[in-house]
Amino acid sequence: MLDLTLRELLEQLGSSQPTPGGGAAAALVGALGAALIEMTANLTIGRPRFAEVEAAARAIERRAAELRRKLGELGDADAEAFDRVSAAYKLPRGDDAEKAARSQAVQSALMLAATVPLDTARLAAQVIEVAEEAAPILNPAVISDVLVGAELAQAALRGAALNVEINLASMTDADATQRFSNDLASARAGSAERVARILASGRSRFPGR
Amino acid sequence: MLDLTLRELLEQLGSSQPTPGGGAAAALVGALGAALIEMTANLTIGRPRFAEVEAAARAIERRAAELRRKLGELGDADAEAFDRVSAAYKLPRGDDAEKAARSQAVQSALMLAATVPLDTARLAAQVIEVAEEAAPILNPAVISDVLVGAELAQAALRGAALNVEINLASMTDADATQRFSNDLASARAGSAERVARILASGRSRFPGR
Repeated sequence: MLDLTLRELLEQLGSSQPTPGGGAAAALVGALGAALIEMTANLTIGRPRFAEVEAAARAIERRAAELRRKLGELGDADAEAFDRVSAAYKLPRGDDAEKAARSQAVQSALMLAATVPLDTARLAAQVIEVAEEAAPILNPAVISDVLVGAELAQAALRGAALNVEINLASMTDADATQRFSNDLASARAGSAERVARILASGRSRFPGR
Repeated sequence: MLDLTLRELLEQLGSSQPTPGGGAAAALVGALGAALIEMTANLTIGRPRFAEVEAAARAIERRAAELRRKLGELGDADAEAFDRVSAAYKLPRGDDAEKAARSQAVQSALMLAATVPLDTARLAAQVIEVAEEAAPILNPAVISDVLVGAELAQAALRGAALNVEINLASMTDADATQRFSNDLASARAGSAERVARILASGRSRFPGR
């Protein structure tokens, strides 16, 4: 997916091919959010005016760049996991043995298809944490980019959560479903409040105010 | 921007080059959201099971595809507008005449730099409207993609609004600033409630429920 041009990606996404779909788009949007925070750190580092926050800006830059790379890779992982679910649903169900084998294949594919967006949700939550460190200290001339980064990471987190949920809805293992639900709730916990704090902190630093 | 690969885009976005920045990312995320709704419509059209909603799905597909194209183009427009603001700030201010000319150039560049994200915000709001029509009727097997599309459009709208705001913060024409604020408030009005309705409607249709 990373080697597609934006034009190609937008066209493939809109087409009747089911992959890449919402899970891959969520991961990509999380990567875009991380990249915006990384850029704002890069527009802060090395400038005498911001010497006081130089070390913190460097740490933010490293974490944001790593999250940008990891989230960029999850887009492909999501499409592969979705394709495995589709392939499992297409297995034959002529007799009881085939039905049982198909059902097991579907369940194990759904498990993987829920794991990838759960990873996306966790990484997107980390992007929001980095944005919370960035908003009060990075270069105010471009601080809106940190706030946009937080909004994009929040959409990535929510979009990934929807992809976990839709896969859980067809899972039959109640224990596994509960575990995924708990993990997802942990990943989401506090993110809305955190984004609200980021927006308030960054907005108060807009130039001209 | 549309001819960059995703890998290139993510790297350029993260780099110390200020464009593309948050305004372009917001437009792109809106385009991704529209593409997900377009895909879900395409996975509904022509299937006998969904014959009853065929005409509505076709109308949704057309509107989503158009919004996807328009938002994709706004990414470049945003980067150009930002570059004009930067260029205006670099004009000489040696004497009063130069200062006045520079100030006028900055103000007119800021006006354009606020207009592009205002357009992005309006188009993103339209993506959310299309998602509201789509959530109750399109193919339930992939309905989570419509919900993710709505979340991405909401982030695009909020991200674009932040870019309008940061440009207004440096504008000196109070009337123009008020006009932009009013237009932005109109574009945002009701979108959060609409997204909540979309999520409730689509979630109730997840397969297995």
